[in-house]
Amino acid sequence: MTDDQALREAVLQANRLIPKAGLAALTWGNVSGVDRAAGIYLIKPSGVAYDDLTADLLVPVDLETGRVVAGRLKPSVDSETHRAFYLRWPSIGGITHTHSTHAVAFAQAGRDVPVLGTTHADTFSGPVRVTRDLTPQECAQDYEFNTALAVIELIGDDEAAQATPAALAANHGPFTWGKDAGKSVEHAIVCEAVAEMALKTLALNPSAAAPQWLLDRHFSRKHGAGAYYGNDLSKATGA
Amino acid sequence: MTDDQALREAVLQANRLIPKAGLAALTWGNVSGVDRAAGIYLIKPSGVAYDDLTADLLVPVDLETGRVVAGRLKPSVDSETHRAFYLRWPSIGGITHTHSTHAVAFAQAGRDVPVLGTTHADTFSGPVRVTRDLTPQECAQDYEFNTALAVIELIGDDEAAQATPAALAANHGPFTWGKDAGKSVEHAIVCEAVAEMALKTLALNPSAAAPQWLLDRHFSRKHGAGAYYGNDLSKATGA
Amino acid sequence: MTDDQALREAVLQANRLIPKAGLAALTWGNVSGVDRAAGIYLIKPSGVAYDDLTADLLVPVDLETGRVVAGRLKPSVDSETHRAFYLRWPSIGGITHTHSTHAVAFAQAGRDVPVLGTTHADTFSGPVRVTRDLTPQECAQDYEFNTALAVIELIGDDEAAQATPAALAANHGPFTWGKDAGKSVEHAIVCEAVAEMALKTLALNPSAAAPQWLLDRHFSRKHGAGAYYGNDLSKATGA
Amino acid sequence: MTDDQALREAVLQANRLIPKAGLAALTWGNVSGVDRAAGIYLIKPSGVAYDDLTADLLVPVDLETGRVVAGRLKPSVDSETHRAFYLRWPSIGGITHTHSTHAVAFAQAGRDVPVLGTTHADTFSGPVRVTRDLTPQECAQDYEFNTALAVIELIGDDEAAQATPAALAANHGPFTWGKDAGKSVEHAIVCEAVAEMALKTLALNPSAAAPQWLLDRHFSRKHGAGAYYGNDLSKATGA
Repeated sequence: MTDDQALREAVLQANRLIPKAGLAALTWGNVSGVDRAAGIYLIKPSGVAYDDLTADLLVPVDLETGRVVAGRLKPSVDSETHRAFYLRWPSIGGITHTHSTHAVAFAQAGRDVPVLGTTHADTFSGPVRVTRDLTPQECAQDYEFNTALAVIELIGDDEAAQATPAALAANHGPFTWGKDAGKSVEHAIVCEAVAEMALKTLALNPSAAAPQWLLDRHFSRKHGAGAYYGNDLSKATGA
Repeated sequence: MTDDQALREAVLQANRLIPKAGLAALTWGNVSGVDRAAGIYLIKPSGVAYDDLTADLLVPVDLETGRVVAGRLKPSVDSETHRAFYLRWPSIGGITHTHSTHAVAFAQAGRDVPVLGTTHADTFSGPVRVTRDLTPQECAQDYEFNTALAVIELIGDDEAAQATPAALAANHGPFTWGKDAGKSVEHAIVCEAVAEMALKTLALNPSAAAPQWLLDRHFSRKHGAGAYYGNDLSKATGA
Repeated sequence: MTDDQALREAVLQANRLIPKAGLAALTWGNVSGVDRAAGIYLIKPSGVAYDDLTADLLVPVDLETGRVVAGRLKPSVDSETHRAFYLRWPSIGGITHTHSTHAVAFAQAGRDVPVLGTTHADTFSGPVRVTRDLTPQECAQDYEFNTALAVIELIGDDEAAQATPAALAANHGPFTWGKDAGKSVEHAIVCEAVAEMALKTLALNPSAAAPQWLLDRHFSRKHGAGAYYGNDLSKATGA
Repeated sequence: MTDDQALREAVLQANRLIPKAGLAALTWGNVSGVDRAAGIYLIKPSGVAYDDLTADLLVPVDLETGRVVAGRLKPSVDSETHRAFYLRWPSIGGITHTHSTHAVAFAQAGRDVPVLGTTHADTFSGPVRVTRDLTPQECAQDYEFNTALAVIELIGDDEAAQATPAALAANHGPFTWGKDAGKSVEHAIVCEAVAEMALKTLALNPSAAAPQWLLDRHFSRKHGAGAYYGNDLSKATGA
């Protein structure tokens, strides 16, 4: 079992951001973070209220088997979805699932969230796409693992997963991921924000679109070799 | 009269959730909880601000006669609606009525809230339906009791009431119920959330729909013999 | 000059409800309350932030002349609109003006807020209507007084003003009134809530309507000789 | 370097208003304020969370060269956009950029925010317009400076910039300005509010419009020689 208290604390704080950022009501939503060296990920327990959640209650799950490693709590019912993502994409360290309103609206409408502006392009290189429907068979057995497989089928390899770290499970809701738990929930915030902007943009102009060169410029300001966004606050002091 | 202080506290907290969860402005909305052994339900007094509400101010009403059992306050004007639900459905222990924005919009539009995704199917087995209009006669006499009868006519028996514990009174608003007061207000939160999601989904895709097998899978994750959602936090400690 | 400290406090609290209830950004919106015996109304000073507002800063205005009675602050630029309402409708004791989003949307669209359900009918006996456009002459001189005259032309006499204590100045926003300052801001809250519900109802069903007998029943539950809504909390104690 | 602590504090408070007023999530958005005598403007550092922001972390930039004058932090990636505005419009003292939802929706839809009522006309003399698309060349080099040039091409001279201190960069978002940092963020609040009202107005009436004489009257109540809105609170005391 992982004894990484920093990971426990990071996963706890990321889970608490879900209600704080208005991404889900009640106990909806969950965040996990992985310790790849230990072969374990920590995930929100199933059905626990965010106000009751503590670092100790997070459930450690074995990455290979999906079995709970310690404690008496069951992990989120979506645990197997998380596990499949970790197995497929080695670069990711955290995963978030929410039922945020506007992202769910796109998932339920069966429409991708199109890239209509720089808010979207600053974080996601392409549209936030919706999976195909699962088959009755995929729903009947290993449903949660199959949910991930449909997302992986849509997204592709690790590089593609880094370029657009978000997808919508059809008639369900958004899954986002990132290098750690905190980054994955940040992507959930962006996903909801750009979905809301897109819904309102389409109400004003059903054929809205954006020039690709503008989008590329914004994505490259923040990502890749030429990125020039952000600061390291530890360098702030001194002349 | 019931001297169940735990019930008083539970009904008080459930009422306070209404403004906290943004389900109603001013004094709109009310929650009740029933003590079936005592033959009494406790309900919010009429027209009292949520900030002024205390456990002592809750009004005890006789389940058989609808008469106030103690105190000088009148119960919510919707008291008779609650009473009719308790009489018809023996399994329910709490009832919530709100004027939450999106649920009211569907009630005023005369449209059911369709099951468009898993957020809805996690809690409600079918659409949240709208009653027929009341007749002039039903409005003229015993209006509040007749409001419940139109809902009961729509929903059916106790089993059906458990499967989808929510309905919309036409041109009025949502009524939800559950095994206790807290669960009924939780269902009011879900009802408003799925109504908002549905309204936005329909704006993106007027013919949106969801595969029945996905919805069934989600409902059965949380309800019935095969349910595997949730935890008992009292079991959390120990290895 | 009025030395009614209770009125000062009531008008202050009513003004503070505007930002608290989300009815206006920045310094938008204003509430006044009248002391008819003294022939004076107290109104928010022009352009003062709600956080800076104190009871002492409220501006006393002479009901007959519209002149400031004491202090060096100018009253709200809408002071003359308030004055015209007080002069025309003897029963009203308070007036509120806001720029709340959905009420403004109807005012800008030139559409009445229709009575689509009981939330509306509980407070307003008819639609919240929009005035005609002011003429260039009415805008050029005595603009604020003329704004009130267009509302009065729409609403009619004192009895009609009590039945539906709200109107929308075309391309401007809502004015509401009531027996005192607190009641007028409560009506502003209802006005915004029913405008939001109506906008969303019309998005779901452009021809939505409600049976008149249901609306009448709800209005009469709260208003007139047969009203049975509400409690006097001072009677709450004792058996 | 400017040692104007009052400017530092004003720019800090203006930046903090962005999340407080709900104008942007995460680290999106930035405010700057200029010290024209010193030839320097202070701007938010790139990618710093609002909760971590202090007056000391604001980055001083040389107005002529765009170079950082002191400290080790990089300025906002939008620094060059700010600089171009300061160089072109001598009357302005502060600039705000946000990704507020409804203003972005208009920017992404490629539609101006039309003047549909007095809320808009109280602050902006004309529509909040959208720039043309930048060319691939303008995006490839000096992108941020070119973003400002497209806005300046749309707005015109200093007088025009004062009359309507807001514009939408196409597929990007709003830029607003004012006599100081605080006023620029106030204009960002107005810009978002009127965009939301306009979107909802157009949903109710796609051909909504307002009489020009009403709009002119409102703009002149607050601006120019005949303005009569507002108070100087320092004059509030005494008879």
